[in-house]
Amino acid sequence: MLTQEKYLDLFENYLAQTELPAEPELLYTPIAYSLSGGGKRLRPVLLLLTHGLFSESVHEALPAAAAVEVFHNFTLLHDDIMDNASLRRGKPSVHAKWGQNVAILSGDAMMIYAYKLLSRIQHPRLQEVLTVFNQTALEVCEGQQYDMDFEQKQKVSVVEYMRMIELKTSVLLAGSVVIGALLGGASEEECRALRRFGVELGLAFQLQDDLLDSYGDQELGKAIGGDILEGKKTYLMVTAMSHGDESQREILRKTHLDATLSDQEKIARVKAVYDALDVKRLTEQQIGLRFERALAQLDTLSVPAERVQVLRDYAMSLMGRKK
Amino acid sequence: MLTQEKYLDLFENYLAQTELPAEPELLYTPIAYSLSGGGKRLRPVLLLLTHGLFSESVHEALPAAAAVEVFHNFTLLHDDIMDNASLRRGKPSVHAKWGQNVAILSGDAMMIYAYKLLSRIQHPRLQEVLTVFNQTALEVCEGQQYDMDFEQKQKVSVVEYMRMIELKTSVLLAGSVVIGALLGGASEEECRALRRFGVELGLAFQLQDDLLDSYGDQELGKAIGGDILEGKKTYLMVTAMSHGDESQREILRKTHLDATLSDQEKIARVKAVYDALDVKRLTEQQIGLRFERALAQLDTLSVPAERVQVLRDYAMSLMGRKK
Repeated sequence: MLTQEKYLDLFENYLAQTELPAEPELLYTPIAYSLSGGGKRLRPVLLLLTHGLFSESVHEALPAAAAVEVFHNFTLLHDDIMDNASLRRGKPSVHAKWGQNVAILSGDAMMIYAYKLLSRIQHPRLQEVLTVFNQTALEVCEGQQYDMDFEQKQKVSVVEYMRMIELKTSVLLAGSVVIGALLGGASEEECRALRRFGVELGLAFQLQDDLLDSYGDQELGKAIGGDILEGKKTYLMVTAMSHGDESQREILRKTHLDATLSDQEKIARVKAVYDALDVKRLTEQQIGLRFERALAQLDTLSVPAERVQVLRDYAMSLMGRKK
Repeated sequence: MLTQEKYLDLFENYLAQTELPAEPELLYTPIAYSLSGGGKRLRPVLLLLTHGLFSESVHEALPAAAAVEVFHNFTLLHDDIMDNASLRRGKPSVHAKWGQNVAILSGDAMMIYAYKLLSRIQHPRLQEVLTVFNQTALEVCEGQQYDMDFEQKQKVSVVEYMRMIELKTSVLLAGSVVIGALLGGASEEECRALRRFGVELGLAFQLQDDLLDSYGDQELGKAIGGDILEGKKTYLMVTAMSHGDESQREILRKTHLDATLSDQEKIARVKAVYDALDVKRLTEQQIGLRFERALAQLDTLSVPAERVQVLRDYAMSLMGRKK
């Protein structure tokens, strides 16, 4: 089994040498732009690490690793249109740079390109991989639809919120892990455990993202309060809404719309409610619980302990925890 | 081998019993709406007819037939956003009915659903089918991008136009035919001939569509002149542009923008140029040529003549020609 850095290297090399056609330029340039935007490459690295638990033939897993990363970037491209987001990883988003029609169509081509990569897999379990990929991809769309639905909804429960982020974020991590496991030769039972690992890790990861947006982390240099200013329904917000009294809920619902307040005042006012309701601790508790559940799944695998350790270390580093 | 009506029946039944999830409603209702819009079901029927040339096991081809139809309807859904078209087959288009974000996302889910149907194929040639489907799907996107590029271009040559409609329209007919052939057990040579059949038939079909928009066909009840009023670059327009002198090209370029003219006057003015340049006959000639080339491919197949006749008859009826 290789190190996470080595898997990332192999992945970047593979992606770089799968060349896109040059023409039509407005179809393919945005795809290359989108894929070169960097990011953690979390999904392909998870896929390759999981594959590495069971197999040394890393090359058989590279097309699938590329497919999940391309698919993920396709979802970001189309989500940015729907969310009217003009920046992505500090650069103009595709629709901001080239316009909406180019963004729709190059996104479509990007998804097809993900399937093209997937069809390169030479493996007896291709059909199982396709089934997992398709189900995962549909669920990601379901998650995005629920997320958009929530914007129009007065009340979103914690349970509904967890189900939404499971679909929007976790299932693609879980799908990546399961595809890696399938290609590596894992048993059905191991695939089930690893799927659970991916789902719980994804939930922990998303909740941590929600937490950092409001409570930040100097080290990671995250901007603080963006979600509050947008009035976004995050885990913190839906938890506070479910615990707060009527006057607190009123503050949570209306502060971001109050034109008489500065950004700093809005953030302070909402965080005062969060603090009164102990939301930070409740979120940290939920993150800890989900992350523990994720790691517990790894203990059920019949795989040499030093291999599992590489995957565990990666999960730890992802959550900003020391090895 | 069955009749085209029987294949259509089997297809509609298959499509009707592949149920979509109920939730989230705004994701799946537009897909069902889009698929229930009818249309000729040209691509799946071609796929099944071609499959029928080689095999009696029609059920093995139904998932692929559904996949190409779902994919086709997905392209219409997203094209309608890009073209800002508010009607589709006489009903509100998805983005007109539900808004753009719903149209983008349900279109995405629809494409994934096409792949889900495709992955149901239980067949040793699954990987070949996937390769053809992916390449076809990418080329359809390329065609749409060239079509959008042409809107911004002063001059589009006849050759460029033919290449665009080959990508936007023909390759999906050709892909459907090849997938049917592959699943039926056709040889590589037969697949090549049938691909050519599909491409040429698609070109003839699209050129006929262009022709009918300007010269109509009372029987089919087609509206006349819509392309002219939009200033669309059709085969008639690019042919006239390439044959006309400067004053005629001026008329072709500017008439649709002239606010002092009624629709009837605009149409009459452009058609006067078409008539002066014999564009109707030139188009009919090209249609005839392409359709002959398509049919000639069928003569190369080592398949019982009465089977080929069913496919030939279908192609004839598609082009509005008597059997």
